[in-house]
Amino acid sequence: MQDLVKVVVDAMGGDNAPEEIVKGAVEAVNRQEDIFVYLTGRKADIEGELRKYTFPKERVEIVHAEEVIETAEPPVMAIRKKKDSSIVVGMNMVKRGEADAFVSSGSSGAILVGGQLIVGRIKGIERPPLAPLIPTKDGVALLIDCGANVDARPSHLVQFAKMGSVYMEHVVGVKNPRVGIVNIGAEEEKGNALVKETFPLLKECGDINFIGSVEARDIPAGVCDVIVCEAFVGNVILKLYEGVGATLIHKVKEGMLGSLRSKIGALLVKPALKETLKSFDASQYGGAPLLGLNGLVVKSHGSSKALEIKNSIVQCVQFKQQKINEKIKEKM
Amino acid sequence: MQDLVKVVVDAMGGDNAPEEIVKGAVEAVNRQEDIFVYLTGRKADIEGELRKYTFPKERVEIVHAEEVIETAEPPVMAIRKKKDSSIVVGMNMVKRGEADAFVSSGSSGAILVGGQLIVGRIKGIERPPLAPLIPTKDGVALLIDCGANVDARPSHLVQFAKMGSVYMEHVVGVKNPRVGIVNIGAEEEKGNALVKETFPLLKECGDINFIGSVEARDIPAGVCDVIVCEAFVGNVILKLYEGVGATLIHKVKEGMLGSLRSKIGALLVKPALKETLKSFDASQYGGAPLLGLNGLVVKSHGSSKALEIKNSIVQCVQFKQQKINEKIKEKM
Repeated sequence: MQDLVKVVVDAMGGDNAPEEIVKGAVEAVNRQEDIFVYLTGRKADIEGELRKYTFPKERVEIVHAEEVIETAEPPVMAIRKKKDSSIVVGMNMVKRGEADAFVSSGSSGAILVGGQLIVGRIKGIERPPLAPLIPTKDGVALLIDCGANVDARPSHLVQFAKMGSVYMEHVVGVKNPRVGIVNIGAEEEKGNALVKETFPLLKECGDINFIGSVEARDIPAGVCDVIVCEAFVGNVILKLYEGVGATLIHKVKEGMLGSLRSKIGALLVKPALKETLKSFDASQYGGAPLLGLNGLVVKSHGSSKALEIKNSIVQCVQFKQQKINEKIKEKM
Repeated sequence: MQDLVKVVVDAMGGDNAPEEIVKGAVEAVNRQEDIFVYLTGRKADIEGELRKYTFPKERVEIVHAEEVIETAEPPVMAIRKKKDSSIVVGMNMVKRGEADAFVSSGSSGAILVGGQLIVGRIKGIERPPLAPLIPTKDGVALLIDCGANVDARPSHLVQFAKMGSVYMEHVVGVKNPRVGIVNIGAEEEKGNALVKETFPLLKECGDINFIGSVEARDIPAGVCDVIVCEAFVGNVILKLYEGVGATLIHKVKEGMLGSLRSKIGALLVKPALKETLKSFDASQYGGAPLLGLNGLVVKSHGSSKALEIKNSIVQCVQFKQQKINEKIKEKM
């Protein structure tokens, strides 16, 4: 019999909690027999949702937590004070080894702080990066770091490159992933102080496939698989992906409704267009792992629906079975 | 009689030099009687191009320059050594007051370095920012700074905010332009060290309309008119705008050709789509001014065609007539 992968899911986090969270969790256990889900949060609310579905009851368990950390709360304070919140309770289960992973659509700040303070870093890891997958022309790339650590140092970026390579190779399945550092020009002498210092260090790494600088313009075209950057820049990239996409789609739709001729055309292209745009939507890939922790923490988008929650949970199986943390430890 | 606005145009700079550059210059003088153009570069080449067109000969003059600065050359060295290059010759004319502005699609590095070393900064300006207009949902916004000065200090960003406000109000015509600082969250306590230090300084500025932090996600939606950021981040924003747009358009087109039904639809929506996408193309706005210099230097895209060159030249008229540099001096 295969080992169960135990995932704690924060039933109270995100814009669509608890409905979509519980639904996603049920879909995950229904899809794969090797998944066990703990749902943390208010028992009555979770029970109410669970009643809607059919699922193997022996692989879903509610762990009551009375409190909820709100998005607007200062994260450090929230993690310290709300001991009985769905996030703190869930992370403690990972820390104690009762679960392999924790998935939440709740407060980013609280998840990042909790990951470090409760779950804790792998020995040698200086900072745990948040690493979402973003869509590219023909696939996906890992954007690392994306919000966990602003004003990073060169040594942090080198660790991001190594952890990102392990993740892309063994979770996403890209052989010998190409690693690039985000820069404002392709030449080695270009960049800000951080990039200039980091570049030679990455070049010296024998265990990654470093291809040099990548310009932001080339990221969507898919020039590399692991996109290394400092968190402020990573956050700008992630958010702008969303923003440019949304505005452009809005304009395309608006433009197509401008004349009768194009209105008819719009009706005909609509299904194909919808399919295309879905393939360029970052949220479909589930959550972003917070790498380098003693356990796995996955932050999914605040607006996540059941599909993303399911994908986030399923991703934890690959993470455990491929022994990602052991592989990260070997590289440090 | 109205004063002529004298613009030096680098006829040798960019991917489409000299053909498109000369063509754009001719279109500018044919469009507006108040424009005088000097074309710097190899006389024979420029004459050959000019022969193709009809235009008022008394408002176009060739200034021969034997050398050309290539994009790959180290900028400081190129500006110092190639005294007879189209860039150095043109910038010296602005410095000596023989011309009001210099427009080039050539090496960004050389233009930025030349602007500072040859044209020189307005007294009090610490760093001259490069400030392109980028498209938003219903208009444009000024992205300042975008490539001139990486690792900027808070005082630089405050100057960018002031100069950008003057430009948006008096060149683009936006009353009381909203100024935002690029950040990774909307709250004042968020951000990296630079943003945290700059935020209160911007809040104190009585002469700008500071609206606080803007997240990259909201930039394309047009939440502010002047987008203040450090050059590395600005460069990432500008390039990613291009990259996401290009990839998304590629995918939309590809998606529409996937079935017969959508192929027919694609034919019908094509004209409307083309119009829409044009309105979201950053290059249509002509070049980006390098602000804060004793004169105006405009960097247009390396791939500029006649239209962008013409727009870059026309933009110089507004800049001079609105006395932008005098207004900037008053704010320092």
